Order: sequence, then C-alpha cells, then structure tokens
Amino acid sequence: MTESGKPILYSYFRSSCSWRVRIALALKSIDYETIPINLIKDGGQQFSEEFQALNPMKQVPALKIDGITIGQSLAIIEYLEETRPTPRLLPQDPKKRAHVRMISDLIASGIQPLQNLSVLKQVGQENQLTWAQKAITSGFNALEQILQSTAGRYCVGDEVSMADLCLVPQVANAERFKVDLTPYPTISRINKTLLALEAFQVSHPCRQPDTPPELRA
Amino acid sequence: MTESGKPILYSYFRSSCSWRVRIALALKSIDYETIPINLIKDGGQQFSEEFQALNPMKQVPALKIDGITIGQSLAIIEYLEETRPTPRLLPQDPKKRAHVRMISDLIASGIQPLQNLSVLKQVGQENQLTWAQKAITSGFNALEQILQSTAGRYCVGDEVSMADLCLVPQVANAERFKVDLTPYPTISRINKTLLALEAFQVSHPCRQPDTPPELRA
Repeated sequence: MTESGKPILYSYFRSSCSWRVRIALALKSIDYETIPINLIKDGGQQFSEEFQALNPMKQVPALKIDGITIGQSLAIIEYLEETRPTPRLLPQDPKKRAHVRMISDLIASGIQPLQNLSVLKQVGQENQLTWAQKAITSGFNALEQILQSTAGRYCVGDEVSMADLCLVPQVANAERFKVDLTPYPTISRINKTLLALEAFQVSHPCRQPDTPPELRA
Repeated sequence: MTESGKPILYSYFRSSCSWRVRIALALKSIDYETIPINLIKDGGQQFSEEFQALNPMKQVPALKIDGITIGQSLAIIEYLEETRPTPRLLPQDPKKRAHVRMISDLIASGIQPLQNLSVLKQVGQENQLTWAQKAITSGFNALEQILQSTAGRYCVGDEVSMADLCLVPQVANAERFKVDLTPYPTISRINKTLLALEAFQVSHPCRQPDTPPELRA
C-alpha cells in the first residue's frame, strides 16, 4: 500500500494476467496505483532483486493490498471478491460458480501459461507463432463448446464474472498471435460485448501508464 | 452420478491433477466411483468422442456430481468446498485464503501445465527431461521462498488446505523427473508430513483402480 493507503498493482501493460486484475479493480471501483514492471526492458525488470522479494515467481501481476502482497491473478481476484464483494464477480449459485471457475482455470492454466513470454523464449524464435497458435486454438476449441451450455450475454449467464475477465485478455493474445477467430463465434460475440464496457476499456493495454506512445489509443 | 447417486471421477492414476481431487474427496469422506481414463492407451482415451463430450479440454480429472460435470481440478475442489464444507480446505481468514490460492495457482498454472504430457510430447523426446526440470525448479525456487512466510506444519499454517493438495502431487512429478530436492527443505518437509496422512495415502497413484500391477504398492 502507498502512504495514502491505496493498493499498488505491479503490472505490465501487455500482460494478459495483469489485465484480468485491472478489470476486476475497475469493476469494483477500487482506486489503486500502478507500478509498471517492464518484462522486456533491462533484460526484464521482473528479475530484479527488489521485485523478486515481492513476488518470487518473477511474474506480474502482484497486488499489495491490506498489508499483504498477492501474486497469481485468480488468487488476487478471489481475494478482492471476498473482501470487496460488490459488484460480484462470482454468481451466487454454487454450480454457476463452478462453471465460472472452470472457464477461468481453462484459460489461466490451460492456455495462457503455454503461450507466455518465458515459454516462447524457450521454444525459439522460429517456432513461437505455431506453438502459441496451437495452445490457443486447442483451448478455444474446448471453450467454444463449453460456452454453448453456460453462456448468456457473457461467459456464464448474463452477469459479468471472473471468466469474462480471463476471456477478453486471452482473445487479445489470440489476435496478437494471428489466430483465426472465425471458428469461435460465441467467444467472439462475448468478447465484443465485453469490450464495450467501461471497465474493460479503462483497463485495456492501450491505455495504461506504461503503454508506449505508439501503441496508445 | 451413478444410479446410486455417487459422484463419478474420471481419473488417471498417474495424473497429478486427478490426485489433487482424489485427496479432496478422501479428506471430505465423499464416496465416489472412478472411471479410469488411460492417457496413453489407444492413443489416449481422453481423445475419445465420448470423453470429449464430457470434458472438451480432453483432460482428466472431470467430476460428475450433483447433475453437472466439472473440469479443472481447482474448480472441482472449490465446488466441493462450497457444497461439502467439512473439513475445510480453505482457511477462514481471507488473507490466509489468498495465500492458499496463490500457492495453488503457482503450481496449477505456473508449474504443472509446463510439464504435462501433451506439452512434453511437443518438446520432443530428447528435450523432455530438461524442459520438465526447468519448469519445476523455477516454480519450486519461488515456492520454497513463499513458504518461509506462510508455512506452519503445512503450506499455510497448521491446517491442511488446497495448497497441500497441489503440493504433494507436484513433488511426486518432480521425483519422476529426477529433480534434486535438496534445495527445497521446506517443500520436502511438508510433503513428507502430508504423505503420512491417510487421505494422501488412499488417493496415491500406486493405489488406484487403474494402477498397473507392477506399480502397485
């Protein structure tokens, strides 16, 4: 927390996991400060001793709040949900909550980790695009099918949930990796609907304190 | 659910994510039936049309319970926690719950997906061991550090939590991939303590209906 008591988000404008948390903070109207951690500059600022002490995983996001520092985007969102429950990001019904968490984990464990920066570095420059596309299409094939039975206006019914906070940043990654989205009409429709909401707009990678001028919009 | 109303767990004896759920079911004394999905036989039974209809991610575990089918191990465990709260697998204090979920996600998103079967296939036979070791040591370096401030007898304080359900199966994977565990005394100590508990023993890969005779113990 800052001296003013505001939570501090360690974030990188383009990190899809950071974006998930930024949407949650925006939806819940939580005022916070951003400390940008540039994952590319200086060989990666996440590897600095100072940041490692904060988050030993050397990843963004991390959130300093209420006297603790939390890493892992979904753990952060669940904490915000438990301590700042309005508006809720998990439905009341346990079965619907299970659907929300299943979709969130499908993206957060089943897709994103396989196409993140550190893995793509290991895969080597010439294989990166194919590798990332395979991870995303494989996950999106499953997700499109699951959404047939869970989706309303959004991923699960008609209320914005944690699943939607995972969906939009993952679709942005898919676009960066030139994944053809035509086989995913439900994913595309929900993504478009969500991007019209203010919380998704103010948290967008093109509007962050560390967004480079040429990428701002 | 079966005709008898028991939940059905689609599981593979050696799958670390299935083991997480088996521990939860054992701790909560939930009676269930296992349908083994052999991830290697017949080119992978998870790719059958029948199983894909159940879990489009083509992964184990999946749990049929209360009329729904849930995929993703942590989503399953959170559902069990909400509907069968005793004994609890998440502490009461929101900050401790955040630590439990952070450690769980560190393993479930930050380590396991990078060393699972489908990724190792893509990496190629000659690189598999190095790749898996790198993913595990990188995650364990962070985890060992985090445990210095969260652990008591177990990962978070002195009560068994979801984090412990993730830890033990991940250590078993580390051993399979010949990771040197001497740099991780806290992880090793907690793992050993947990393995002495009955719920971790009955759910162990060496004691499942689909464990091959030569691996039974």
